[in-house]
Amino acid sequence: MPSMVRSDAHYVALCGGVGGAKLADGLAQVLPADTLRLVVNVGDDFSHLSLGISPDLDTVLYTLAGVAHAAQGWGREAESFAVLDEVKRLGGPDWFLLGDKDIALHLLRLTMMGAGATLTQAMRALAERLGVATPILPVTDDDVRTIIETDGGALPFQTYFVRLRCAPAARGCRFEGAETAQLSHEVLQALDDPALAGVILCPSNPYLSIDPILAVRPLRERLRRLEVPVIAVSPIIGGRAIKGPAAKMMTELGLDPSPAVIADRYADFLDATLIDEEDAALAAVDKRLLVAKTMMHTRQDRAQLARDCLAAIDMITKGASPPIPARDRNVQRTEK
Amino acid sequence: MPSMVRSDAHYVALCGGVGGAKLADGLAQVLPADTLRLVVNVGDDFSHLSLGISPDLDTVLYTLAGVAHAAQGWGREAESFAVLDEVKRLGGPDWFLLGDKDIALHLLRLTMMGAGATLTQAMRALAERLGVATPILPVTDDDVRTIIETDGGALPFQTYFVRLRCAPAARGCRFEGAETAQLSHEVLQALDDPALAGVILCPSNPYLSIDPILAVRPLRERLRRLEVPVIAVSPIIGGRAIKGPAAKMMTELGLDPSPAVIADRYADFLDATLIDEEDAALAAVDKRLLVAKTMMHTRQDRAQLARDCLAAIDMITKGASPPIPARDRNVQRTEK
Repeated sequence: MPSMVRSDAHYVALCGGVGGAKLADGLAQVLPADTLRLVVNVGDDFSHLSLGISPDLDTVLYTLAGVAHAAQGWGREAESFAVLDEVKRLGGPDWFLLGDKDIALHLLRLTMMGAGATLTQAMRALAERLGVATPILPVTDDDVRTIIETDGGALPFQTYFVRLRCAPAARGCRFEGAETAQLSHEVLQALDDPALAGVILCPSNPYLSIDPILAVRPLRERLRRLEVPVIAVSPIIGGRAIKGPAAKMMTELGLDPSPAVIADRYADFLDATLIDEEDAALAAVDKRLLVAKTMMHTRQDRAQLARDCLAAIDMITKGASPPIPARDRNVQRTEK
Repeated sequence: MPSMVRSDAHYVALCGGVGGAKLADGLAQVLPADTLRLVVNVGDDFSHLSLGISPDLDTVLYTLAGVAHAAQGWGREAESFAVLDEVKRLGGPDWFLLGDKDIALHLLRLTMMGAGATLTQAMRALAERLGVATPILPVTDDDVRTIIETDGGALPFQTYFVRLRCAPAARGCRFEGAETAQLSHEVLQALDDPALAGVILCPSNPYLSIDPILAVRPLRERLRRLEVPVIAVSPIIGGRAIKGPAAKMMTELGLDPSPAVIADRYADFLDATLIDEEDAALAAVDKRLLVAKTMMHTRQDRAQLARDCLAAIDMITKGASPPIPARDRNVQRTEK
């Protein structure tokens, strides 16, 4: 662990699927497991073939366990599809891909929850079995379901995202159940932790991954009132999303796909947003933006971006205002 | 279809797993699908990994669909175990073997039943998808659970049968839920069918497969009052069970493992019991016993035994009393 990480500092990271999971993995690499809590979107969750599907939770779990499929952005590596092949042969639905190993995890989770475990408790048990010590916390144990308002009507998330491959033009999102959902005990504990040193919004789709987390009240109010820094890593680089429909949705919603939009969207609680070196020019005119290498190709990239996040939080805590662009900070650290 | 089968005659067959399923397949081969109803034991059913397991129903379905594993007595041929391997790796239970294709069927059934289908309705839909037209009817859509009283205490069926491999000495069986379970609408319809020409007890374990069917009241009373013949095929040949623990249990229960015991056990409603050629000597002294080739090695053997059952019913209907031993009848037919 790099010496710059205070051993008594605890962190919370909010994340969705693939992009967020990569930074979550970086943070898990550089922080002791008992000092990091990942708060994960459940808006994509749905029931399929009687199984409770939690795409973001599982992507985070598989990524931290080192068993995620590197290229496809969901599911596990070295996966087989014998069950799904037979489901299809028997006339069942095969539009949502579930591998055999993935189904094993889903059956165990269903069994745990059938025996009374919360989703949070089931995730903890499964994480243990996959050798992941960092807590992966659903933002809530209640149902929150993302609905995409499109030109073709309101669509459940998976219909929009998987069945229709994000083709319909998005007009907005709403999060069914968020009004009544409660932050889990474990998430409240993480936010109330006196050792909390900062909160990181991972580079996940703001509309589909971060918004549904924030919609579970009073999370956004909590972040506004926090006395420690809250930073984000922009999922937008050079006007495009690294993965998924974020940039397409922004254009459809009449927004310019820019890192500044992320900073604007969360301006009520965000202290700084890390943007990629490619967008460094923006940081010159917008002091809320810090420059870092946010494109993560390797596990080392993830760890480095995690360190940059922690350094940014540390810097903001120490009162640098406006924060020093991360690029300068990186140079300083390199010189040490 | 052989000409001896009356096209307007309907039949009901009661059966459990492997042995019963073979004769059920024979009957399905020689009878039009709309003239045969299979009434199947659900006492072995249990919930495992959140899936509703119905071993006898599925053995019958897979056998009639021609996809049953020929040698092992459960599950499907050409099966893989990727899910179970991962369940084991994740610390889950692996003592009950479920293949990947088998899991696909279980997930579809769970989904159908989650949407409100009865077990009977789900089985019909699954049978259609596997190309099986003969109705495979759970004796009841309610829960009946076989409990084995052993020297080591009362054991749920699967614990006794699979986990402990029938090792504990059996002292008796009871069928939890049978007192309140209702015969399904479809089973009642089959028994009330004016075209009903006879009922066949397939060669299944009397204690573990036939008794729990009969325990669902008022099935046994119905059989007693039936005006058409009820016959059985003995699962005991030469003092041993073809498969499973029937002979061992009979010995433990202080009974002589003999075809006559089967005839005695169901004497209140049984008109005749078909026993194997190997036991032909018994038929000379016990006129309730008819001789046939009850050992089924091939699909042709199954069809032949089915024809022998139908011929025995026909003969009893026509008033032969005591019935002519099947061996004589077989000779007569061969001479035609």
